[in-house]
Amino acid sequence: MLKTENARRLYGEFAADLPIVDFHNHLSVEDIARDRRFENVGELWLFSDPYKHRLMRICGVDEYYITGSSEPFEKFEKFCEVFPRFAGNPVYDWCRMELSRIFGIDLLPDGKGARYLYDLCGEKLASPEFSCRAILNRFSIAYQSPVASLLDDLSLFDGKSTAPSLRGDQLLTPTTELKKAISEKAALPIGEDLDSYIRAVSVLLDRFDEAGCRFADHALDDGFFQGDTDGHKQKILIALASEYQKRGWTLLLHLDAKRSVGPRLARLAGPAGGYAAVGGGFDLSSLGSMLGEMEGREGLPDTVLFPLNLGDMAPLSVLQGSFAQDGVASKVQLGPAWWWCDHALGIRHALSCISSFGLVSEFIGMTTDSRSILSFVRHDYFRRLLCNWLDEQNTAGEWELSFEAQGEMIRKICFENAMNHIKK
Amino acid sequence: MLKTENARRLYGEFAADLPIVDFHNHLSVEDIARDRRFENVGELWLFSDPYKHRLMRICGVDEYYITGSSEPFEKFEKFCEVFPRFAGNPVYDWCRMELSRIFGIDLLPDGKGARYLYDLCGEKLASPEFSCRAILNRFSIAYQSPVASLLDDLSLFDGKSTAPSLRGDQLLTPTTELKKAISEKAALPIGEDLDSYIRAVSVLLDRFDEAGCRFADHALDDGFFQGDTDGHKQKILIALASEYQKRGWTLLLHLDAKRSVGPRLARLAGPAGGYAAVGGGFDLSSLGSMLGEMEGREGLPDTVLFPLNLGDMAPLSVLQGSFAQDGVASKVQLGPAWWWCDHALGIRHALSCISSFGLVSEFIGMTTDSRSILSFVRHDYFRRLLCNWLDEQNTAGEWELSFEAQGEMIRKICFENAMNHIKK
Amino acid sequence: MLKTENARRLYGEFAADLPIVDFHNHLSVEDIARDRRFENVGELWLFSDPYKHRLMRICGVDEYYITGSSEPFEKFEKFCEVFPRFAGNPVYDWCRMELSRIFGIDLLPDGKGARYLYDLCGEKLASPEFSCRAILNRFSIAYQSPVASLLDDLSLFDGKSTAPSLRGDQLLTPTTELKKAISEKAALPIGEDLDSYIRAVSVLLDRFDEAGCRFADHALDDGFFQGDTDGHKQKILIALASEYQKRGWTLLLHLDAKRSVGPRLARLAGPAGGYAAVGGGFDLSSLGSMLGEMEGREGLPDTVLFPLNLGDMAPLSVLQGSFAQDGVASKVQLGPAWWWCDHALGIRHALSCISSFGLVSEFIGMTTDSRSILSFVRHDYFRRLLCNWLDEQNTAGEWELSFEAQGEMIRKICFENAMNHIKK
Repeated sequence: MLKTENARRLYGEFAADLPIVDFHNHLSVEDIARDRRFENVGELWLFSDPYKHRLMRICGVDEYYITGSSEPFEKFEKFCEVFPRFAGNPVYDWCRMELSRIFGIDLLPDGKGARYLYDLCGEKLASPEFSCRAILNRFSIAYQSPVASLLDDLSLFDGKSTAPSLRGDQLLTPTTELKKAISEKAALPIGEDLDSYIRAVSVLLDRFDEAGCRFADHALDDGFFQGDTDGHKQKILIALASEYQKRGWTLLLHLDAKRSVGPRLARLAGPAGGYAAVGGGFDLSSLGSMLGEMEGREGLPDTVLFPLNLGDMAPLSVLQGSFAQDGVASKVQLGPAWWWCDHALGIRHALSCISSFGLVSEFIGMTTDSRSILSFVRHDYFRRLLCNWLDEQNTAGEWELSFEAQGEMIRKICFENAMNHIKK
Repeated sequence: MLKTENARRLYGEFAADLPIVDFHNHLSVEDIARDRRFENVGELWLFSDPYKHRLMRICGVDEYYITGSSEPFEKFEKFCEVFPRFAGNPVYDWCRMELSRIFGIDLLPDGKGARYLYDLCGEKLASPEFSCRAILNRFSIAYQSPVASLLDDLSLFDGKSTAPSLRGDQLLTPTTELKKAISEKAALPIGEDLDSYIRAVSVLLDRFDEAGCRFADHALDDGFFQGDTDGHKQKILIALASEYQKRGWTLLLHLDAKRSVGPRLARLAGPAGGYAAVGGGFDLSSLGSMLGEMEGREGLPDTVLFPLNLGDMAPLSVLQGSFAQDGVASKVQLGPAWWWCDHALGIRHALSCISSFGLVSEFIGMTTDSRSILSFVRHDYFRRLLCNWLDEQNTAGEWELSFEAQGEMIRKICFENAMNHIKK
Repeated sequence: MLKTENARRLYGEFAADLPIVDFHNHLSVEDIARDRRFENVGELWLFSDPYKHRLMRICGVDEYYITGSSEPFEKFEKFCEVFPRFAGNPVYDWCRMELSRIFGIDLLPDGKGARYLYDLCGEKLASPEFSCRAILNRFSIAYQSPVASLLDDLSLFDGKSTAPSLRGDQLLTPTTELKKAISEKAALPIGEDLDSYIRAVSVLLDRFDEAGCRFADHALDDGFFQGDTDGHKQKILIALASEYQKRGWTLLLHLDAKRSVGPRLARLAGPAGGYAAVGGGFDLSSLGSMLGEMEGREGLPDTVLFPLNLGDMAPLSVLQGSFAQDGVASKVQLGPAWWWCDHALGIRHALSCISSFGLVSEFIGMTTDSRSILSFVRHDYFRRLLCNWLDEQNTAGEWELSFEAQGEMIRKICFENAMNHIKK
């Protein structure tokens, strides 16, 4: 993937060995804590991977072989059969990198080789070198923060290299049940007012803070602002943002997913089933106004924006210059290409937008947002693309950056800028 | 146009000789049936071509020379005069390909050469090799489906390589007159209710089905969802979609045209006069919801989406993974770059989006949507761009596809995927 | 920046020496008239440049060093310190070009060299060759039109190479005070009706016309159409457009800025403080309808559109074919990449869109919209990008334009097309 001698040198001398900061993902801390073992390659690699299920469905594979009652090998074989049709999609690249980097296998799946590949991976998985933690140890992970909900048990996080990040979604539409649970755990009464609710939540936020939490994420789905007719959700979010800001946390906003599209896949695959669409008309103007309101109350935390629509990267990257705080770089910024946008097209477009409309040197860099322990290879994917992109820009745009200055930019984007959000 | 040795080989060995499937166009079946002859090159090439009229207007040419009362040669001469200013627009490329491929002329139009070109083409048109059918026979057309309205005479379609496709627009806003005509032709009463209307329409859909129809298209113009305040148009469309699905037809949705912009050209050039604009704020979220509603009623046909706004290609290509049916590849997909987007920029962006957000191997490929029999050269244009793009991606992305696997992808995109919608 | 021998030849033989037409900027005519001298490089280059302030803020520089009470050199030093982090942003390129072209200095700012650079520039500024007019005289400016408000004193414009252009914003929401002032200056009564208002305005427009005015600009910010519930602002704009059209002026519409985002920078940096965001959901459809309404009343002036959202360039460039007037090329057109979009990414995208969706040969070309006399170097930046782009397209797209024809296109885009709007 590295296209020039300079790109190869940048990668080798600066990018390759930097520790990983994965500030938002969905890994199972339980799997990590009990050092889970995997029965077969499907269990680790396929059966709970919505990205791969999605592509199998696009190929017209019967659901029986995807989430149905077929045998593990049947599912794997079907996956291998259609795999050659995946070329061009990032899953194709990720699979290759995962097979090569984790399993040391340089084959690509296809129908004929399915059994051989299944057995070969099976043998490897039987060894202790393929336990959950052993796999994670192959990567140099400085910090990662799997999401947890406010009431979750945090005892499985080590609070150092693995700390919780707060998934705040349910907090914007609190049910009576949730309020009751928060009230009990916080040992504070919650009335009908916002203040008592936030006070109780705040007690539990302290627990997260003690467990090393530095990030809180909220999904502002398609229709968020339009549907929030009385502004109630925004009021809660603004109040929470102020709490995050007090603790020095960073707010992650995931924008514009249309999670419930067709009823068939909602039924078959559940809420995280990999069939979400893009709203496509996200109200960027209201988002800007809401951030302004947070700032007006001195409660704007550092904020990273993750649009699902490629076209929103340009207008959102302009916000890097719209909010500022003394001593803070990139108060509000576009984050790395997210979810369906996490491929070469999206990553390169994000880099171009941040660079052209703001400053790419201050960019927070990559996070996987993944449910799979194999996905850390994507940091390598990102770094290779970054080295290529930087080399191209430096040449085409005549930036005239020295080799060391290019390296400095890579270090910042791949590691330091994200670490600055953690060390605060 | 083919940039590398591999691209040239892909084109020569796989793409060049594949039969054409043109699943949506506006050719005159009458012209084909009576094997129309053309008096002069203007009649075939200019006088009824809104694309060329549009560019003449952008150059400031007086309307007198476009649709006015000037003589045929005057119009042609004016066109030739401004032609060199067209470089960069796809019409420039199409003209060159049409002159070269159809007329065997490698000149480019300009003011000085207008008379020579006019006479040279005129001579050729006088020969039987330039009748409507003779021109069509130069292309290897496996299937094409010019649009017809529900009440149109279908006797001129041969039902094999030329079958009707249904233009359904008027069906969403049925006038009393239209209902009366449908009722009579179907020999079924139509009341005020939706059911009796759909029952009568259904009888006429059977006629289309018998004539070989496999595609129905609806234009959802700018403001479609916002203007459909009581949801009446959507209800009809959902009911029709169920009928299409029963017959195994594919639904084509053309999105976001703003057909009536300025009053001057509306008056001078009529509804298909080539001056349509892009709405630019199409409600993609409501579109997704409507497709979901169709699916919920088990009446979602295979669907191909044609946005007019380049920026909608990315979010719409995500839908490839949002709907699925056992045994059906690409249940809902982004179609080829449409209308004003049908140029290298649009075609390449469509390929990138489908590939990055979905699977390009399952892409339905090119259709012209044209009113001109010369436009089949655009399939060749598309194929050359595809071979270049595929070669670039395979190299840059390190897909490591074998030459045969690249060929397989080309065969699918240029021919087989579309044929799968026809053979059903 | 010029990548091939052909691009270098195109630049050298055609682009480099063409006079500049800068049809919209914010230069101070007072500075020009009194031939202002600059005390230090900060005064000329930094202290009132919102682009540079913006990037310093993104780097987290304390406001004390940006607009605060720090000493001139302290500010300059801080700017130099963070400058290396600007690579990729257009300001980085502009700074380099300004230092090199105006000051003859080929250093790039950095922390260590700040004092040397400050003193070196200071010495140069002490010489008469660095007065405001002397700097302007280094450029070959055929025509430029700094904005002026309707009531401004126009005596400082020479009416030839420097003429006023009308900034019309306040006219759409006239206060009682403004009406009174207009009424007095025009010596005509203004009632509650639109007609008497426009009649009085019209008298003052004649003053502008006599002073050489050829352009009027209006900012249609984010929410313009949605906020104009009774259509009052549109009615005034339509009436004004008719006045502009009568005088042969060109209307410039700047679209979709969200000028007031965060309260902190609004307070610190004022309305032109360089922190504006992009609305991101501009109502392109209403814009098209409004232009249609102008045309229906025979009052559509030539119009140039400046979107702030990169994604709006494609749909807006389609409008080049939607409006037409006999003898007028590009009646309505996309303008050059504006404000935050004025960088290689934006300029190349604008060229691609205009070319693919319309005719780039008729493109009005570059204007700076700048407050700085140094910004004329951006015409050179644009021209180099144009020569590269044209060379690439001509090769990749096989346009087969002769060297002279390429030169003709460059001359039109860099000079003649804009001059056609002035000579009218």
